[in-house]
Amino acid sequence: MKLAIRPLVATAVALGIAAASFSAVAQQAPKPEQLIKWRQSAYQVVAWNSGRIKASVEGTYNKDEVVKAANTIAAIANGGLGALFAAGTETGKGWHDTAAKPEIWATGSKVGEYSANFGKEANELAKIALAGDQAAVKDQYGKLTRTCKACHDDYKAKE
Amino acid sequence: MKLAIRPLVATAVALGIAAASFSAVAQQAPKPEQLIKWRQSAYQVVAWNSGRIKASVEGTYNKDEVVKAANTIAAIANGGLGALFAAGTETGKGWHDTAAKPEIWATGSKVGEYSANFGKEANELAKIALAGDQAAVKDQYGKLTRTCKACHDDYKAKE
Repeated sequence: MKLAIRPLVATAVALGIAAASFSAVAQQAPKPEQLIKWRQSAYQVVAWNSGRIKASVEGTYNKDEVVKAANTIAAIANGGLGALFAAGTETGKGWHDTAAKPEIWATGSKVGEYSANFGKEANELAKIALAGDQAAVKDQYGKLTRTCKACHDDYKAKE
Repeated sequence: MKLAIRPLVATAVALGIAAASFSAVAQQAPKPEQLIKWRQSAYQVVAWNSGRIKASVEGTYNKDEVVKAANTIAAIANGGLGALFAAGTETGKGWHDTAAKPEIWATGSKVGEYSANFGKEANELAKIALAGDQAAVKDQYGKLTRTCKACHDDYKAKE
């Protein structure tokens, strides 16, 4: 049992998550396919909300839309996505075959750094969105999407 | 074009969303299948985070886990889910065939009320979670899940 849990915790630490978070979850750990489904869902929700912000910065600006969308992305980005990449989820099918590359779990993986950047820029966007300045939001939205791209370039398989 | 947009706006208003939110989106409206996929994803993310809170209130309490999970649910609950039920999405396949019942879009539909309750109780849980009192969180978590059940009982087809 300890052998099974240890790599999961190591992955969690690498992804910037307190190992203690797993004390309860480990007892009734969801299956890898469920975790993959959840992470695919989480990124879909990010894509939905990213599209809402994009529509606003490129078209008619809607402050309320941007605030809601930025809040949702920030909550997900800082909500513990790393747990959905637990050991055992390197391959498998959620809604579809995972696009996660094995390098995510390799020694020297930069996913923890990328994940922290994603959270940081998402929080900054949620803050800036409250002021409702389209140009400032557009600039910060660019910073946010570059954190998405950095991680996808290294760790997401091409479709 | 106006005829196509009008029912979408009517649905949005019924779901408690400002019609103005659609001004930009309507110009490049995502396909119904995309909207269904996004809403199925959003509810999966809610389910993931609901499970994290359940594990904490029924097992070893982890304040950080609960705060993150409650924040994510609150962001989604108040983030404009109604737009994902736009006219044209009454039937169709996202990740799977929609489980949404046609009564959602019928006259007298209570989805707006249910959605508001969901948002209200989710916000309250996010607030209560900050204090870290397990019993208080458990009580509020019960109130939140009852808003899920109320809507599912009326508007979600059995699997």
